[in-house]
Amino acid sequence: MSPREQLPQLPAAQPLLIGIDAGGTRTRAYCADAAGRLIGTGDSGPGNALGVRPDALVRHLKQALTAAMPAEVRGRTAAVAAGFAGGGHGRGRENAAACLTRALEALGLEAVAMEVYGDAEVAFASGPGVPSDGLVLIAGTGATAGRISGRREVRLVDGHGWLLGDEGSGFWLGREALRTALRAVDGRGPRGLLVERVLERIAPGWRRADGPPAVDARQLRDVIADWAYSRPPAALAGLCPLVVGAGEEGDPSALALLDRAADELADKLAALDAGHGELLVATGGLIAPGGPLADRLEARVAPMGLRMVAVRDGGVGAVALAGLLTHRLI
Amino acid sequence: MSPREQLPQLPAAQPLLIGIDAGGTRTRAYCADAAGRLIGTGDSGPGNALGVRPDALVRHLKQALTAAMPAEVRGRTAAVAAGFAGGGHGRGRENAAACLTRALEALGLEAVAMEVYGDAEVAFASGPGVPSDGLVLIAGTGATAGRISGRREVRLVDGHGWLLGDEGSGFWLGREALRTALRAVDGRGPRGLLVERVLERIAPGWRRADGPPAVDARQLRDVIADWAYSRPPAALAGLCPLVVGAGEEGDPSALALLDRAADELADKLAALDAGHGELLVATGGLIAPGGPLADRLEARVAPMGLRMVAVRDGGVGAVALAGLLTHRLI
Repeated sequence: MSPREQLPQLPAAQPLLIGIDAGGTRTRAYCADAAGRLIGTGDSGPGNALGVRPDALVRHLKQALTAAMPAEVRGRTAAVAAGFAGGGHGRGRENAAACLTRALEALGLEAVAMEVYGDAEVAFASGPGVPSDGLVLIAGTGATAGRISGRREVRLVDGHGWLLGDEGSGFWLGREALRTALRAVDGRGPRGLLVERVLERIAPGWRRADGPPAVDARQLRDVIADWAYSRPPAALAGLCPLVVGAGEEGDPSALALLDRAADELADKLAALDAGHGELLVATGGLIAPGGPLADRLEARVAPMGLRMVAVRDGGVGAVALAGLLTHRLI
Repeated sequence: MSPREQLPQLPAAQPLLIGIDAGGTRTRAYCADAAGRLIGTGDSGPGNALGVRPDALVRHLKQALTAAMPAEVRGRTAAVAAGFAGGGHGRGRENAAACLTRALEALGLEAVAMEVYGDAEVAFASGPGVPSDGLVLIAGTGATAGRISGRREVRLVDGHGWLLGDEGSGFWLGREALRTALRAVDGRGPRGLLVERVLERIAPGWRRADGPPAVDARQLRDVIADWAYSRPPAALAGLCPLVVGAGEEGDPSALALLDRAADELADKLAALDAGHGELLVATGGLIAPGGPLADRLEARVAPMGLRMVAVRDGGVGAVALAGLLTHRLI
């Protein structure tokens, strides 16, 4: 949490507040005092409420909670608010609530007030003043936009994952980088800096300094396919930095991809019928403060009349929601 | 084999010829006499040379061969030519050759002449007169274009599979149908006949005749995601008939998808620098004779000066290549 994202001062209370932000790659717990001052954080493995098996999700929650809270203060825990990717409604929310209950019981915290949210809800609550209504956009490995009303998501756009959507996400950028390389190898597209970087990452040494390449076009096709199909699709997001780097050096293919990604993200917001002056909370690696698409996104949402605030993650919001839970303000 | 695709009369010989066409979903063996007259066929499971484990591939080859050849004629086998998806070069070709050798040994056919081809090569050889030079396009579950020279593939375009390419394929059409449905559910696109058909397939009864829908938009999102992510991606090709059917009834979204698919297929050919009057052999469920994209493709390749011939599959070509092998014509 940066100073700028410091929690608003909540009504004083001795107890501790726990916020959890559980996403597709990481489960992170935040422990704060009633004034929102951070006491500890703890990380563990994936926390998607629809994609992680219950036993693993319980284990990740316990690990993150244990690491975030010194044992001697655990008894002071008053409330836990947890946001899960896939946990905003329906079966995902039920899964998440059941797993969180088991994790809290295992830590002797069964009497603590708890509430389950979607990741979009805790991200939005990380905005200024623990806002209750507006738009949220998450662009990390995946990409989801949502409308929040009364601190609950009432509409979602995209977030359909690598097979069906997430255009403009980190996965999407990584996959498009690979596709750009394959088009070049197939003789269907230009072979610029981005393509060189991708080929060098996936087939190091494929081109010798002198003489013909060590690997011909048909072999390159196979090497790229082997690389891509031998890992989980979401791992293609790992190629994102190559796109960002090539873009910074002016590669036209990379710049075009980054612009298209920002267009795709803005399109999701446009589908939410934004009103003039509405708050947009933006988070996820691509659009969090300093993220590679943050400026591009801001340039696209300003003409839509949106007031964009970028936050690092949903941790601040989860802790704030725990505070509101304690005080029965919601 | 339709009469139109009957093999050319090869130089007479007593021995039998075996052709194999092994693709991502099926391995099919053809047994013919030296004049190309079909004696038997046999089917088995997937035969992709890069995607099927060796033991399974050997088993599928043996099953298909056994079913195609009456036991009493097996000893008359003179040559086997086998085309494998992924088997045109490199590691895939080595895998295919090793597995075919094992299968033939198991059937007591270790002395038989054999040769391994890519699926594009046997498909092209199914064209009129066992042609040796030109273009080939396969559009079934996947989509690959290639240039054939001396009956061997010398260049490939696409065929990169569901994660990285295959635009215009059956998988691609099925995925786009799902994406069209998701855009409608998200309020980002029209809800026409194609969308209704997809939703009814995936979430039967989601809408009641009277009253509000049994399933709301957020639940539909989850139902669609559960359906799509719980099966192999290539299985999305199973939605293709919904697109074709909705297109026949004039649904604009379906018609637009079918047109885009044909555009994507023609784009692959354009990358192969086709010369005027060159032969194009087209096969695969979408563009084989009577296939739903056959007319659209023909309309796009005619202005390119290509002479398109659609064939049902690579079986005729595989048998013909076996015949050429026997006679040492190649």
